[in-house]
Amino acid sequence: MFEGIVQDLIDELGKLPGIGPKSAQRIAFHLLDADEDSVRRLADVLVRVKETVRFCTVCGNVAADELCRICADARRSDEVICVVEESKDIVAIERIREFRGRYHVLGGAIDPIGGVGPNDLRIAQLMSRLASGETTEVILALDPNIEGEATSAYLSRLLQPMELTVTRLASGLPVGGDLDYADEMTLGRAFLGRRSV
Amino acid sequence: MFEGIVQDLIDELGKLPGIGPKSAQRIAFHLLDADEDSVRRLADVLVRVKETVRFCTVCGNVAADELCRICADARRSDEVICVVEESKDIVAIERIREFRGRYHVLGGAIDPIGGVGPNDLRIAQLMSRLASGETTEVILALDPNIEGEATSAYLSRLLQPMELTVTRLASGLPVGGDLDYADEMTLGRAFLGRRSV
Repeated sequence: MFEGIVQDLIDELGKLPGIGPKSAQRIAFHLLDADEDSVRRLADVLVRVKETVRFCTVCGNVAADELCRICADARRSDEVICVVEESKDIVAIERIREFRGRYHVLGGAIDPIGGVGPNDLRIAQLMSRLASGETTEVILALDPNIEGEATSAYLSRLLQPMELTVTRLASGLPVGGDLDYADEMTLGRAFLGRRSV
Repeated sequence: MFEGIVQDLIDELGKLPGIGPKSAQRIAFHLLDADEDSVRRLADVLVRVKETVRFCTVCGNVAADELCRICADARRSDEVICVVEESKDIVAIERIREFRGRYHVLGGAIDPIGGVGPNDLRIAQLMSRLASGETTEVILALDPNIEGEATSAYLSRLLQPMELTVTRLASGLPVGGDLDYADEMTLGRAFLGRRSV
């Protein structure tokens, strides 16, 4: 129905995560009305991002050089490695300004339905980092969903024979949330993990 | 926190309508993982769309040539003009396959708060189309919200002196919806517009 090129744009936008056909149409018409400079800026950054962005050869985080900013930072401790699914999880953890160790990005989580097995993740790279013996604790900071749980269970089994403390983030009620809005799983975890006051 | 170029991409994506900071981050990381071809395809179509897409000189619809497909179609009737806010509304109306007349795209609706007045819309172009005398009915198919209502009221006043039938789309309960989920305004309109069976 639309002129071919407009439909092409809607189709390409619709392939992005979280963008349905309606949103794609809305964004396409917004871009048609937008000034040419801003659209060209978006197109440029898309091309440049693929040309320039690399992944840290040590931890797998997004990087501009061979090492990401965190792996290149000599002030951070090698004693603790925090294992996350994606680079964006690092941003979330850095925001709390508590953790001064290193990270390891797995590149996803084990998901048999989605066809992601342990060999598709950066687990071998993690094991070779741990082999140097500098690390004393591994924090498993995976998403609190089925795939994250499965990956945590897999990794903790794998790490058990090594002389390491393996920890994982606490589950429970989110701060500032309403107890009666919490789902059964979360409330169950909050009960299991209750602490004396 | 992110490497500069990744943050640039997140910023540019966040300027699109309906894309918040979280979605922008999600899309950016999706694009980082995507193969280079698909990202380049999106960048290309963005540039091409601004280079090639024009607007129909008669009705204001998206067009590849001087006239849009509908204005160029000799089989359609000049007797009825359906006035819409945006090109995408034409797609929605064409989908019902009932209307065989022409369209007129206003390019928005009157919105004093947003700084859109009658002179910012393609109203003068509509009046000069009507001056030829071929048209006998104008259908006001504007969005059923405050801005659309204001624009309908403005246009119907403007068209009153002319020898034209001016109609607007019916308001009422959406088909397939639940009566108790309808808001008071919709239910009120449904009552006002009730018909004998």
